[in-house]
Formats: sequence, structure tokens, C-alpha cells
Amino acid sequence: MKLVIIGASGTLGRALIDHLAGKHEVVKVGKTQGDYLVDITQADSVKNLFKKVGKVDGIISVTGNLHFAPLPQMTAEGFSLGLNDKLLGQVNLALVGQHYLNDGGSITLTSGIVSEQPIVGGTNASTVNAAIEGFVLSAAIELQNGQRINAVNPSVVTESLDIYEPFFPGYESVPANRVAMAFQRSIEGGLNGKIFKVW
Amino acid sequence: MKLVIIGASGTLGRALIDHLAGKHEVVKVGKTQGDYLVDITQADSVKNLFKKVGKVDGIISVTGNLHFAPLPQMTAEGFSLGLNDKLLGQVNLALVGQHYLNDGGSITLTSGIVSEQPIVGGTNASTVNAAIEGFVLSAAIELQNGQRINAVNPSVVTESLDIYEPFFPGYESVPANRVAMAFQRSIEGGLNGKIFKVW
Repeated sequence: MKLVIIGASGTLGRALIDHLAGKHEVVKVGKTQGDYLVDITQADSVKNLFKKVGKVDGIISVTGNLHFAPLPQMTAEGFSLGLNDKLLGQVNLALVGQHYLNDGGSITLTSGIVSEQPIVGGTNASTVNAAIEGFVLSAAIELQNGQRINAVNPSVVTESLDIYEPFFPGYESVPANRVAMAFQRSIEGGLNGKIFKVW
Repeated sequence: MKLVIIGASGTLGRALIDHLAGKHEVVKVGKTQGDYLVDITQADSVKNLFKKVGKVDGIISVTGNLHFAPLPQMTAEGFSLGLNDKLLGQVNLALVGQHYLNDGGSITLTSGIVSEQPIVGGTNASTVNAAIEGFVLSAAIELQNGQRINAVNPSVVTESLDIYEPFFPGYESVPANRVAMAFQRSIEGGLNGKIFKVW
């Protein structure tokens, strides 16, 4: 299969490439490095990306920034940052990408454990991750020609604990190569509209 | 209790006022009519509203527009409309409103059945409604001084079937006065971080 991975140079992206590159053709995409560059928050940038990459069998998004702040100090401006990046960015990839997806191809987005198990300071993250899961559930009933869409919902990733551990007290971390297997399940399997929890 | 109802002139707003006005002081707010006017998509407008209304015991949102379109034709621009209105608008009400809420007061937002049971053309609605539920789940763990937040998730409302029936095939509608009871449960009860499904 020809797979395009957006966020290829990140922790999950690198694990995914290790896991998938042996049996698939992988196109690496990032904001600042990769075979192609994209700013997922800009619909035109996403359109230009797919015009250059062409038709694919799998679109995998392991990217998107969130806004973290204590609720009493959280502002609409800060909140919008996360909405426009991890949420609308991944929505852009799916809305544009559906038109560049071969029959039977899949889109796999990334949500995260805080959609169900919130953390202090993470209201934006919970909102965005829950939104992605709602998007996947609904888009799945309208994709054409056997196209599928799923999301992978990981716990905090072991390789990122140096940054995130203080925010996830008592959360069991998951190694990136376990998360990569959930992406493989979405890409190579037949499921549609599912959330693959890795926790 | 002093309650502020945003969306007071809508179908749910009117049912809520019928149900609650006998025992509570109700401040009616809308975009074009009411005791006070607000544009929930503008944080400054929401701030001005609460400066005028002052401290309250309950903030109830029964408002917010969504974007409906078939997935193959859906664009980032259209999708943003729903994000900015029903999602970010209600988030604005909660983020600003928390600072005008008396101890033990409640915020009650509105999601909807398509967060779990999507309809064709409703990907934006599913995303926004799921997002609201994620927001509620997370904000609930950070509100101060016994403040609470919940969401009411209604099925299609019977009084709106003349418009919405074709989009909800086989969905049992619920009368607005049943939905009003779920809001009462949030306002007068003690629950926090819950989604009250009315279906």
C-alpha cells in the first residue's frame, strides 16, 4: 500500500515508520521536515500536499498541537489554538484526503486517553480528542467506495514521559511501538468508525 | 436560584422557562431578543453579558448553530462555522461564566444524540456534540467551590420535527418538556461532569 504519514518525524511517526515501512510505501510529511511539507491548519496547504502526493491507500495523522492551561485561566483565544490545530487540522486532512483515497483506503486519526480520562489543565485536550472521535464515528457512515476512517486513542506514550509524566499521575504509559500496532490494525484491517484504545 | 438562560427564545429555551420560571429567577438571553443580548461566538460579547447580569446560580445554554453538508462536499470553512458557534460559543459561556457563578452553582450545556448516533450529513454536528461532552467531562474536575458542569444530550425534539424529521429516520423524538426536566436535574441536583441523555 501507499501510505502518507503526517507527523512522520514525531515520536509516534517514527515508530509507525519502523513498524510499517518494511511492507508498505511510506510518504513522510511534516510541518518542517519530510518528503513533503504541510501546515494542516490551512486547508490550501493540505490541498497542495495531496495534489503533490497523489492517490494513496492510507492517510495517517499523528500530529496536532493542543492548548494546556488551568480552567480558571483558560481563554477562548487559547482554546481556539487547540481547536484549529489538532482538531480542524486533522479534519482538514480527512475532508481533503477523502478525494485522494483509493477505493478501500483508510484514514486514521489520533485522539488520546483524555477524551475519557481527563487531566488537570487538559480541558482543551479532552474537548479536541472527544471531537475527533465524534468526527470519526460520523464520517465513517458517509465515506464512499469502501473507504474507512478510524482513530487511535493512546495513553501517554512512554517515549514522551520526560515531558508529560507530571501531567499524567498514575496513568500507565504505552510504548510507541504498541501504538503503531493499533495504526496497523486500522490500515490493514477492515474496521470502520472505530476508536482503537491503546490503554 | 438566579438562572441565566442563553437561547431563551428557542424551542428548548421556552420549554425550560415554562418548567423553571415558577420557582427560580430567570434571566432570558438571546442573540436578537431577551432581557440581554449576546453573540456567544465573541468572547467580548460574553464578557459584557456577564458584567451586566452579574453573579448567578445557574448558566444554561440551549443555543448554537451547526453546519450540515454531505461529507464529500464538506469544507474546512463550513466545518469551522459549527466549531465556532455551537462549540466555541458554549465554551465561551463556560470559561467566562465560571467567574460569575456562585459557589455550588452549575453550568449546563447542550450536546445532542448525534454525538453517539450520527446522521448522514451530520459530521460537523457529531464532532461538535462529542466535543461538548469531552469539555464537560474535563472541566468538571477543575471547577472551584462546588461549582458543577453537565450537558444535556437530547434526541431530535418533537416540536422541531417539521424541520428535522427527514434527517432523523427512525429516531424517536423527545418533547421539549422532557428535555427541560434533564436541565432541572443538572441545575437542582448535585451531579457534576455528567451527560444527561434524553433518548
